[in-house]
Amino acid sequence: MTLPEMHPQRWGDPARQTDLPEGADGLIALAFGELQPAPAVPQAPLPAPRLSAEQLRQLAAIVGAEHVLTEDDVRRLRTRGKSTPDLLKARAGDLSDAPDAVVRPATAAEIADLVAFCQQEQVALVPFGGGTSVTGGLAVAREGFAAVLSLDLIRMKALRSFDPVSMTAVLEPGLRGPEAEALLAERGLTLGHFPQSFEYATIGGFAATRSSGQSSAGYGRFDALVVGLEVVTPAGLLTLGSSPANAAGPDLRQLILGSEGTLGVITAVTVRVRKLPEEKVYEGWRWPSFQAGAAAMRRLAQAGVMPTVLRLSDEAETAINLADPAAIGSAGEGCLMIVGHEGEPELVAARRAVVTAVLTELGGNCVGEEAGAKWAHGRFDAPYLRDSLLDAGVLVETLETATFWSNVDRLYADVKQALETSLGAGTMVLCHISHVYETGCSLYFTVATKAAEEPLAQWQVAKQAASDAMIAAGATITHHHAVGTDHRPWLAEEIGPVGVGILRAVKAELDPTGVLNPGVLIP
Amino acid sequence: MTLPEMHPQRWGDPARQTDLPEGADGLIALAFGELQPAPAVPQAPLPAPRLSAEQLRQLAAIVGAEHVLTEDDVRRLRTRGKSTPDLLKARAGDLSDAPDAVVRPATAAEIADLVAFCQQEQVALVPFGGGTSVTGGLAVAREGFAAVLSLDLIRMKALRSFDPVSMTAVLEPGLRGPEAEALLAERGLTLGHFPQSFEYATIGGFAATRSSGQSSAGYGRFDALVVGLEVVTPAGLLTLGSSPANAAGPDLRQLILGSEGTLGVITAVTVRVRKLPEEKVYEGWRWPSFQAGAAAMRRLAQAGVMPTVLRLSDEAETAINLADPAAIGSAGEGCLMIVGHEGEPELVAARRAVVTAVLTELGGNCVGEEAGAKWAHGRFDAPYLRDSLLDAGVLVETLETATFWSNVDRLYADVKQALETSLGAGTMVLCHISHVYETGCSLYFTVATKAAEEPLAQWQVAKQAASDAMIAAGATITHHHAVGTDHRPWLAEEIGPVGVGILRAVKAELDPTGVLNPGVLIP
Repeated sequence: MTLPEMHPQRWGDPARQTDLPEGADGLIALAFGELQPAPAVPQAPLPAPRLSAEQLRQLAAIVGAEHVLTEDDVRRLRTRGKSTPDLLKARAGDLSDAPDAVVRPATAAEIADLVAFCQQEQVALVPFGGGTSVTGGLAVAREGFAAVLSLDLIRMKALRSFDPVSMTAVLEPGLRGPEAEALLAERGLTLGHFPQSFEYATIGGFAATRSSGQSSAGYGRFDALVVGLEVVTPAGLLTLGSSPANAAGPDLRQLILGSEGTLGVITAVTVRVRKLPEEKVYEGWRWPSFQAGAAAMRRLAQAGVMPTVLRLSDEAETAINLADPAAIGSAGEGCLMIVGHEGEPELVAARRAVVTAVLTELGGNCVGEEAGAKWAHGRFDAPYLRDSLLDAGVLVETLETATFWSNVDRLYADVKQALETSLGAGTMVLCHISHVYETGCSLYFTVATKAAEEPLAQWQVAKQAASDAMIAAGATITHHHAVGTDHRPWLAEEIGPVGVGILRAVKAELDPTGVLNPGVLIP
Repeated sequence: MTLPEMHPQRWGDPARQTDLPEGADGLIALAFGELQPAPAVPQAPLPAPRLSAEQLRQLAAIVGAEHVLTEDDVRRLRTRGKSTPDLLKARAGDLSDAPDAVVRPATAAEIADLVAFCQQEQVALVPFGGGTSVTGGLAVAREGFAAVLSLDLIRMKALRSFDPVSMTAVLEPGLRGPEAEALLAERGLTLGHFPQSFEYATIGGFAATRSSGQSSAGYGRFDALVVGLEVVTPAGLLTLGSSPANAAGPDLRQLILGSEGTLGVITAVTVRVRKLPEEKVYEGWRWPSFQAGAAAMRRLAQAGVMPTVLRLSDEAETAINLADPAAIGSAGEGCLMIVGHEGEPELVAARRAVVTAVLTELGGNCVGEEAGAKWAHGRFDAPYLRDSLLDAGVLVETLETATFWSNVDRLYADVKQALETSLGAGTMVLCHISHVYETGCSLYFTVATKAAEEPLAQWQVAKQAASDAMIAAGATITHHHAVGTDHRPWLAEEIGPVGVGILRAVKAELDPTGVLNPGVLIP
């Protein structure tokens, strides 16, 4: 399987770049007024790599000379991630904080040697999977380091083993979503993990960022799929996962999950797998209000009858209809919910009947499978639309949080108000609930406004206001985008000084010279 | 609600001590030959408390003089736990390692002051809930400490708050199982956590030991019920739980769960709660072999159609029929499975139909609700039977582990052989699967043999052999009894030196003077 590389200045596959859909221009002008198109400019050359010939020779001795890369293009593709601020910088021609070199190890042993090299030479090491971070997870602190080395896991793409009795598979970290699914599909299996970044993001990244996917209601969050981990740390190899669950002290797997490359490099992930679903059906449901739809989601979760996919757009997002950009503005009133069922036909039928009964009783109106099919068809496309909007001069970005059910209304209102207030009149704030639990749910916001002359500064003010609102409401700074460098100050508030102390102590134990992803995650 | 205190030399409520059932004597003689009855002897007086009058005054200033207790009887009831080795020592009159004093704080603030006192005076602090540890969790290392203080949480029994929308409740740590259920039942709710220690064990203990219950298949392990924690650590107050789940770094809740009082004192636990089930039905199923029954459990778990209760006895345990000691030996052939369904009647009916279809297809034979009712009736009684057997001169103890499905046969055979080999001819080894996951299950062994002259030493040899077999098989040293002091050497093997380094680093950060449960858990 050959997958396209990421565009250095945009999301995704350059061949899939799209113009705005027919008719969208007019709507955008109506919404945002006269815009200043903002096409990307060519990239400036990169500074020369800050690694000596001797250092490069040492790296070549570890991974082979053909896997030590210093060309500008290669380094640019390993620079930063894909948040709107990242794209704004890249589009302005600035990829100046590219890594000094890219190394591509093939084994955990080579990674251990690279870690030792970095400790010896005080070089920062940045594990690289899909490059899809939207929280600055690749933008490490350079101060105090002789150079920055990108550890590209692209050669570690094996399905190491599969246990058909236990229904587990050992996957290497460099497998991109479609690659992992293809290897599993050959055996009639699926992982069932489909975040919006699925086409680029990797198994190692899913684990390191505690990822959630669009089907997590049915298959489980990625942290729930993991039963074992192999991690190369500067302190040695850590192998976890003696059993599905146990009482043998704290669950250290849950300390590595979400560690974002700061404590070690994940070199294998043992995941539980499921049979490929024989049937998949996605349908649309219409609700009179966001509150009514959210209450129905809560009822499903608390009754223990969850579909495989469950998401609900608020009134604004329903009207804009991101799932079908060609039909923007034509979606009608109320709120659209997507309800998906996957599995064996009899179980799908049984679960669908129960879910339908609950949703109907609560006032939902099934609008059929067309809306569901449209959502499923466009589920990975929104980031391409963002690039087109940025081209047109619209500032667009997303952010997300989660809280307990009783706090959802307040969190929704507060974040929305923070964004609208900081970005000013004419700002569009759309929201959907993408992940649902018995005790609460996530809120995912999409924001669009007319780009100012300094869109980066414009966004930073809004991001700060929204993040402050999340923490003030007692919610989390991130439900599924992780912490990176962007959310670090708010993580400190969320877990408090004692929590920060724990993270710092583990970091000091496992990575005493601090070469792994410096400046990421840990406040 | 007034609950009985624990007997210092036996399990449970002194009023519920039972003789062996009629007819059991003969069976026991048949199984084990001539036995030497081993009644308990009176307790020796305790050493004087190693706390000065000034220190006791300081403690009284924190919690009130009436909550600083130094009487022998009180101290004995806070000594060690309820493993067979603990009982053997207690029955021999030896409760010499009792705490020097017992303090009963009422608030997290008082606990913080007690922690500060202990740091100042280098006094070991042992959080005490139900005293039901079976892994030496209360037997702290005394070396290097001026005294040992038992921190009894008996005054912290509030249901602090209940959120009917999010379906969460904030519970204090000193609530015993029945007390928590009673407070929740007043609101039509249940926690659904019923370990065998339920009648004595506490909310704080459930959290600190990562407990599992007999209904965990349906309600979830205790670690899955917890959404928030408040913890007094020597480094300050730690408050966790901003959302049901998130991607805001490692899940620090999973570091406190299972920390066994070594990192801090849990002063509040926010749990998800469920509606009290309207219907409960437990039924028995008969399988031709342990393997056939286990395969059926695996099918249920991997199909995602789990009953609320699911357990399977092997041939030996089925024949002995611990669930109904009065009928020992009359249980017939094959393996007994208990399948329980709880919830709303329609959902129970629907789930029961699916489960019944799967089990029938796989060769199971439903033997009706009587077997299920007997199990439910006697579910908390086995520890009383152990005392009667110890009286009669039978050495009896339990141990447990967990692994992935493909490793179950090996683990079962290896642990069984280790026990039979080390304890010699005439040893009975019974086993059941008590907890089932998609990827694996737990194995719970009950061992009975003729007590030797030195039963403690006799058991230690067997325990060592069984524990070595678990680790050699790649399984966990404990699925639900926790680590305590007894499992500490094997925990070191299970998580390896890097894992041990993490635990030690967190310990050093949160409890730099090491006063919290010294010698427990952390290798």
